[in-house]
Amino acid sequence: MIKISEKIPIMINGLPGNVARTMAAAGIADERFLVMPYSLTGQDIPETTAMVGENEFLLCKPDTRDKKIKAIFAQYPFFIAVDYTHPSAVNGNAKFYSRNNIPFVMGTTGGNREELEKTVQDASSPAVIAPNMAKQIVGLQAMMAYAAQTFPGLFTGYSLEVKESHQQGKADTSGTAKAMVGYFNELGTDFKKEEIQQIRDPKIQENQWGIPREHLSGHGWHTYTLKAADGSSLFEFKHNINGRDIYVSGTFDAVVYLREKVSLKGNKRRLFTMIDVMNQS
Amino acid sequence: MIKISEKIPIMINGLPGNVARTMAAAGIADERFLVMPYSLTGQDIPETTAMVGENEFLLCKPDTRDKKIKAIFAQYPFFIAVDYTHPSAVNGNAKFYSRNNIPFVMGTTGGNREELEKTVQDASSPAVIAPNMAKQIVGLQAMMAYAAQTFPGLFTGYSLEVKESHQQGKADTSGTAKAMVGYFNELGTDFKKEEIQQIRDPKIQENQWGIPREHLSGHGWHTYTLKAADGSSLFEFKHNINGRDIYVSGTFDAVVYLREKVSLKGNKRRLFTMIDVMNQS
Repeated sequence: MIKISEKIPIMINGLPGNVARTMAAAGIADERFLVMPYSLTGQDIPETTAMVGENEFLLCKPDTRDKKIKAIFAQYPFFIAVDYTHPSAVNGNAKFYSRNNIPFVMGTTGGNREELEKTVQDASSPAVIAPNMAKQIVGLQAMMAYAAQTFPGLFTGYSLEVKESHQQGKADTSGTAKAMVGYFNELGTDFKKEEIQQIRDPKIQENQWGIPREHLSGHGWHTYTLKAADGSSLFEFKHNINGRDIYVSGTFDAVVYLREKVSLKGNKRRLFTMIDVMNQS
Repeated sequence: MIKISEKIPIMINGLPGNVARTMAAAGIADERFLVMPYSLTGQDIPETTAMVGENEFLLCKPDTRDKKIKAIFAQYPFFIAVDYTHPSAVNGNAKFYSRNNIPFVMGTTGGNREELEKTVQDASSPAVIAPNMAKQIVGLQAMMAYAAQTFPGLFTGYSLEVKESHQQGKADTSGTAKAMVGYFNELGTDFKKEEIQQIRDPKIQENQWGIPREHLSGHGWHTYTLKAADGSSLFEFKHNINGRDIYVSGTFDAVVYLREKVSLKGNKRRLFTMIDVMNQS
């Protein structure tokens, strides 16, 4: 049994990437955690170390990590991994965590999600897996799922417009927007995911949307508009996220939640979602 | 047992009021219904008849309605009442319907709601009671109630802004906005119902809000905005209703629902809400 009162050692994986960097900086500033000076990274990353503020991190690549993990365990017999790496690394990393009994929070999207879940279910250590760690967005999605299940067809006859703005580097359509369209379809709207309007032009983002300049390089603004055919009613839902701070809070809640799960004897469930974290179930 | 295939006779009460007029006109145009040429009205209404299009309605005041209802029953042995009268008439009308075994849809707000429910529960005929007959708004409120129950405190630390615009004649704060504030409070926001911003100035409505001129005399536009203290996220919900058409559809669904309930033998439940109508439960 691990003492809950101690700081939780966490290994932030995905440095020198932006999201991992944000998580590492926030973790260093957070009294609940001890951020370990190691980070899993991609085979193609040229650096061997990364700096986050004054803190130096040793980067561990796939070809040497099985060897290095023994030394890390000697120093940190227990820790929780926080994964913000790359879609291509999702399944390999999950297997690495599982065979080393490392509980982990998987914030990285993409990869083969079914395989990911199976890896966790076959493992002996637990994981929180969530494509979106922003609790308020997860809550909004849960509301929509509830409405779709409880009132299917509620918005039949309504037109839907979906616009999402993200930083220029984001090539694919927002996964959250696609998930939301799924709910709106169940609610009766006739709308294809391909009709989602992607805004990636920083000029439009700043001038037409009013997105603060400092967040043009990292933001997710979503607007969903439902209109009755006769113009008699309009319903609109917006969630506008600037920067990545909102993901930090949810990720760290997931770490604390996992730590508690590990401490409970006889807990056989392995796979948790952000809904579990939010419900403390 | 009443044949469902027949047109449903309905008595639209509240003429010559605007909402009752809208309901009567829509009912006349709707093949499912036979709109009866009678309407309960207030004691202070000077007219004895009201015209809706080409149709003349006899107005029945409280002091003579007990006498007139016998003649009405001779002509229409079964009918459903649709009540869009005045808050001061709610409880008296409900008692009138109940002692005459008239199933009714109560769309009028105000009055003593507890007494209203008790009247229905003690009666032998059923009723649908809903302060808001717009199914999509009822659905939105149900979503919020679900979120408040499932994720209490989800928006803790967020500021809330609530703005509602209605026609100039509406003196009180929107009941829907007040109900929504209740959910947002459960979700963790610190907000008083008195902080709801009421817009009643047609100039502001038309120029700043973009409400169509033809709906300045009858509309309900609501915006709820949640902002994180650090500016990192904004969530917004809007429901903008022009005119009263959206209430017609929900009201008539409730009538059809009640008709089916009356046809079922052995159904002992009397009191239904729009959620029941929407779920067909």
